[in-house]
Amino acid sequence: MVEEALGRGLRLPGPARLVVAGRTDAGVHARGQVAHADVPGGAWEGHGRVLLRRLRGALPPDVRVTSARPAPAGFDARFSALARHYVYRVCDQPAGVDPLRRRDVLDHRRALDVDQLVAASAALVGEHDFAAFCRHRAGATTVRRILELSWARGPEGLVAGSVVADAFCHAMVRSLVGALLPVGDGRRPVDWPAGVLAARERIPAVAVVPARGLTLEAVTYPDPAELAVRAARTRQLRVHRSTAG
Amino acid sequence: MVEEALGRGLRLPGPARLVVAGRTDAGVHARGQVAHADVPGGAWEGHGRVLLRRLRGALPPDVRVTSARPAPAGFDARFSALARHYVYRVCDQPAGVDPLRRRDVLDHRRALDVDQLVAASAALVGEHDFAAFCRHRAGATTVRRILELSWARGPEGLVAGSVVADAFCHAMVRSLVGALLPVGDGRRPVDWPAGVLAARERIPAVAVVPARGLTLEAVTYPDPAELAVRAARTRQLRVHRSTAG
Repeated sequence: MVEEALGRGLRLPGPARLVVAGRTDAGVHARGQVAHADVPGGAWEGHGRVLLRRLRGALPPDVRVTSARPAPAGFDARFSALARHYVYRVCDQPAGVDPLRRRDVLDHRRALDVDQLVAASAALVGEHDFAAFCRHRAGATTVRRILELSWARGPEGLVAGSVVADAFCHAMVRSLVGALLPVGDGRRPVDWPAGVLAARERIPAVAVVPARGLTLEAVTYPDPAELAVRAARTRQLRVHRSTAG
Repeated sequence: MVEEALGRGLRLPGPARLVVAGRTDAGVHARGQVAHADVPGGAWEGHGRVLLRRLRGALPPDVRVTSARPAPAGFDARFSALARHYVYRVCDQPAGVDPLRRRDVLDHRRALDVDQLVAASAALVGEHDFAAFCRHRAGATTVRRILELSWARGPEGLVAGSVVADAFCHAMVRSLVGALLPVGDGRRPVDWPAGVLAARERIPAVAVVPARGLTLEAVTYPDPAELAVRAARTRQLRVHRSTAG
């Protein structure tokens, strides 16, 4: 859909093929998604300035392109990325979720203790085999590096979990949150998620929380000078991991 | 719907009749709506503590009761109110509205100058006959007192108009915003809304902006000691105005 709109917006003969940074699961929001497309240089010169308005006119209201610009040499939206930053939002107030937020916030019927969520999350940070939190895919590694896993209660009483990692497996953030919420509401001990991680296989007791609470908020990239090096390194690592996995 | 849920939540024999502070037009959000119901004292003692959770379970997700408590003597949600506080939100960014905000923010295709909006709003503050901004209703006054009409650009680039008044006629806020946006985007001179006001009759050139951008954010009340006096005074004034109008 974006590929067709981008092709028309830049007056290309057909759709512009996009490479996206985060292939989010269905129902997950992607406010900070990043993508690149290879287009003839002339196409940008002629149409780049009015592209956002053209895309707004062509896309349905649930998809918006917030910024578009020529990429630095060597940029690859997927393979140059250093980290993906997701936020999962939960409301534990007795009244329930503000109706205007019901499409991006999970309604949780038990009160959450943020200190317990923080304590339980510490053991998951770092490089681990997250097989216990990933849907299995033959031949693919489940080793990932979580750079940050933090929790905070916001001004409206919303509890937000921030998860930053080099990359994620399918449904991984939603499984991590599914293992942590029962600690936050007192149904599981604080070391339970660490035990799940160590088992290195999926157990039915870990719920995959609904997609609507999850938003891809940002993707971070290195300085332009290091882009091509980073992309080459990531591609190599993926091949190596896939072979090893 | 809320009346049935409240009746069931307090274990009354039937629905609890609600008196609401602001009778918002269809499609307007009402995050700060206030209402009262007269119920037997025993009903509250037995069920007040768990009422919010029962209401959450009984109501659809687009309606939430955020707080419920016994009202002070003399309280009347409609007639004790000092002021209603509405906010109209507009996005004028080239990319359009954030998809997660598209249900409570208007997408405006021209850039807005907040200083112009502020300047044009000054002439509308105070007590005036707002007939030019009201749908006519036979026998009803269109005199209202606007206490505040301010504009600001928020952190996400959203432009928000705050309108506080003792009361509003039908569609009045949406007509005021409809007269101000063309000043903000440069299509009308800054004194145009004042001229519309002075004409004291509706003109087709003033658009009634869509309901979805408007939210009733708060209703303010006097100190408990003055509640009954305020309610009696408001009732009298409405009767007087209706007769006069």
